[in-house]
Amino acid sequence: MLGDMNDHADPREGAGLLDGLTASLRPDQLDTSPSALDLHARGESWDAVQPPAVVVYPESTADVRRVMALAHETRTPVTPVAANSSLGGHTVPVAGGISLDLTRMDRVLEIAADDFLAVVQPAVTYPRLNEALRATGLFFPVDPGAEASLGGMASTNASGTLAVRYGVTRDLLLGLEVVTPSGRVIRTGGRAPKSSSGYALTQLFCGAEGTLGVITELTVRLVPRPEAVMGARAAFADVRGCVAYVTDVIQSGMPVARCELVDAATIGAIRQHLGLELPALPTVFLEFHGDAASVRSASELALALAEEHAATEASRATDPEALSALWRARHQAYYATIAAHPGMANVITDIAVPVSRLAGVIEGSLAAAERTGAPTYLIGHVGDGNFHLVLFFPPDDGAAHARVEAAYGEMVELALAAGGTSTGEHGVGLRKLPYVRAEHGDAVDVMWAIKDALDPRGIMNPGKKLPAKVN
Amino acid sequence: MLGDMNDHADPREGAGLLDGLTASLRPDQLDTSPSALDLHARGESWDAVQPPAVVVYPESTADVRRVMALAHETRTPVTPVAANSSLGGHTVPVAGGISLDLTRMDRVLEIAADDFLAVVQPAVTYPRLNEALRATGLFFPVDPGAEASLGGMASTNASGTLAVRYGVTRDLLLGLEVVTPSGRVIRTGGRAPKSSSGYALTQLFCGAEGTLGVITELTVRLVPRPEAVMGARAAFADVRGCVAYVTDVIQSGMPVARCELVDAATIGAIRQHLGLELPALPTVFLEFHGDAASVRSASELALALAEEHAATEASRATDPEALSALWRARHQAYYATIAAHPGMANVITDIAVPVSRLAGVIEGSLAAAERTGAPTYLIGHVGDGNFHLVLFFPPDDGAAHARVEAAYGEMVELALAAGGTSTGEHGVGLRKLPYVRAEHGDAVDVMWAIKDALDPRGIMNPGKKLPAKVN
Repeated sequence: MLGDMNDHADPREGAGLLDGLTASLRPDQLDTSPSALDLHARGESWDAVQPPAVVVYPESTADVRRVMALAHETRTPVTPVAANSSLGGHTVPVAGGISLDLTRMDRVLEIAADDFLAVVQPAVTYPRLNEALRATGLFFPVDPGAEASLGGMASTNASGTLAVRYGVTRDLLLGLEVVTPSGRVIRTGGRAPKSSSGYALTQLFCGAEGTLGVITELTVRLVPRPEAVMGARAAFADVRGCVAYVTDVIQSGMPVARCELVDAATIGAIRQHLGLELPALPTVFLEFHGDAASVRSASELALALAEEHAATEASRATDPEALSALWRARHQAYYATIAAHPGMANVITDIAVPVSRLAGVIEGSLAAAERTGAPTYLIGHVGDGNFHLVLFFPPDDGAAHARVEAAYGEMVELALAAGGTSTGEHGVGLRKLPYVRAEHGDAVDVMWAIKDALDPRGIMNPGKKLPAKVN
Repeated sequence: MLGDMNDHADPREGAGLLDGLTASLRPDQLDTSPSALDLHARGESWDAVQPPAVVVYPESTADVRRVMALAHETRTPVTPVAANSSLGGHTVPVAGGISLDLTRMDRVLEIAADDFLAVVQPAVTYPRLNEALRATGLFFPVDPGAEASLGGMASTNASGTLAVRYGVTRDLLLGLEVVTPSGRVIRTGGRAPKSSSGYALTQLFCGAEGTLGVITELTVRLVPRPEAVMGARAAFADVRGCVAYVTDVIQSGMPVARCELVDAATIGAIRQHLGLELPALPTVFLEFHGDAASVRSASELALALAEEHAATEASRATDPEALSALWRARHQAYYATIAAHPGMANVITDIAVPVSRLAGVIEGSLAAAERTGAPTYLIGHVGDGNFHLVLFFPPDDGAAHARVEAAYGEMVELALAAGGTSTGEHGVGLRKLPYVRAEHGDAVDVMWAIKDALDPRGIMNPGKKLPAKVN
């Protein structure tokens, strides 16, 4: 990658780019002020800091097309960003150049409730889309937790608590509009519920983390709001008890819509941060969607199973407000752990494994975390084999940081040995680059062949997603 | 494409290929007999006939790797085939070369019920996989109707009657083993239920119709058999009544597992072919999967809605044997229409459109069919906006054939104007090549860039999937 980056012109040296941008866009669409550059120099939970040369605010696909054509011509790196809620350094412009801030492209363009689809611009967040859908009886069921933008969610193939029932972002995309690295506008997919025509470009751009083009419009599937929702909670003496229970719940084929595991430390942080009254025990949170009868019978089954597993406490929740408070708490869990460690740095893992391997991999990961001595929190979408450990360390303690990073590597190794992945939902960004070759082997060369074919000048979000080429 | 084909060595001229094959494989893995070449010269429902130079029967990934390395070296076209049930000419070796017959790679390698997945070789058919899964309580829910192989189903992104509930083949693939056009073996995806690592190669090879590589192994998702199944049938005076009803069923958000429309002509053919007693009226077949209470209430709702739509006849079926007879009949519908026209040629459309546009596009398509004077049958997976018209004509009547082809083009135009696709589940093959550029626009150039990057010598199933390049 570094070799490629040497090909990039330094846009601060050449006036061509800035002149071109000034000629193509309004003055308020460009910002080279130190505060703007600084604001676009970093991502959430990532310590690399690299300011771009210029921040550009496109307001339309035509704007993006003009910017990409100029970037192509001048070999300028482009790093797209919208909500900037990535946890993997995706939006840090490590090669400088343009920070393409899409936040002004934030319109819901169409809601076609009869066809269960919506068309949105990339900076629309999923909560705002759901707000717009309120009257339709439909919703968009991917909830990565942060106020993430749909463009970013598509770029990382984000998921969240409901993926176990409704699928991940890739499953919910019908089509995209993409500006290619050379400034051409293409449309992928369409509005039909299914198609076998063409290569799967929609799926390919999804999860490409902005390395193959800029997503300027998304056509997303919507699903009917469930007739009835019921929640259940089961607390156990230890994490092992939780995982054994979850494994049984999933393997029973019970139709769960959410299946989350939070350890006692995280519950403590949530209690502190949000003032919620929850027992300070490792807890499994379940939710069932369906008609009234089926959610009742599924939740009864879940409670019976909890009793079999000797749960310390188990209960159901139907009250919509209690449910929504519960899931708000879950969505805030990561921020609650951060609030518990002011001034500390953290890393967050994102392993996913087959459900049968969850117990062993969680156990091994917790053991690796414990050896570092770092305060550690477990938060997991365990229904689909995905869990996060958040490890804290003092930002100026290089030895502690090194121990945490070494443990991170051990955990990924455990996941890969179990047939799993280094990243279930956050994406690679910069964070998982060291593990991509181990996970994908020679398939990485095929990925590079695609990258080189679509972005021959290597200007799209360079340094992310794919590890350096092996020559 | 023709330009590319000129680059192919004629393997009948150069002894290099056959010598290489003979050195790499056992004699019984190669066949150049006229009968074998003739058998591999054609596909189902496609009149192009082109014999390969040699039929090769690999028995392992290593065999495929050796064959591909030789083909790459000698620039020999390779056309993969297994069940040969494609309806679009996918398996016709239009550029000659090797017909790569994978039928000996037909083992179920692993069933991991705890992880809801199975690992299979490409020639395993979906009925055989489901047979192997009988004791597990799980099944693989894609049923394209023919005794299709899973490798072929992955290559065309096949679906069938259950896609409206369980998704299409692409949704049900966790990972693949692929031999690339230059003879490298790669693995895509993995065993975790979800991942955000790497580019979406699994999804890309799915639906690529063998133009990017040879699928040698598939890891597929399995789903729990439903606790209860209930069928319902509603007949209407005309097709328009059926479509209005279906549109209402789908837009109500009712959790259907199957939603099929068969017109009166097709019912007649099924009665004749299978001796089933069905009223000779356009009929909607529904099926519901869930627990006993939810399938009962959904089917009651469906019947109430049928009454509102003034159905001529509506009934429910719970008897497993009656249900299975019903769906066997549906799966045989295409063959029943063929049996009704011995000696006639046919074409089959595969349009899919957004559900709100179904009524108009079906009406327009039937009108176009009627103008040809050809006997026409309607069979549709209307739950996901997909339907087939089968049109018959005498094989030696060029004018009738031309009229049918012209109507085919009109129907695709209607679908594209409605935001739909020329192919919902059969794939492009040779059949839909004329319509790919209209459907995908400049995205075709991006597809070609990927094709050229992964198959620089253009040897993988040349002439299929992508239309000729525009220079």
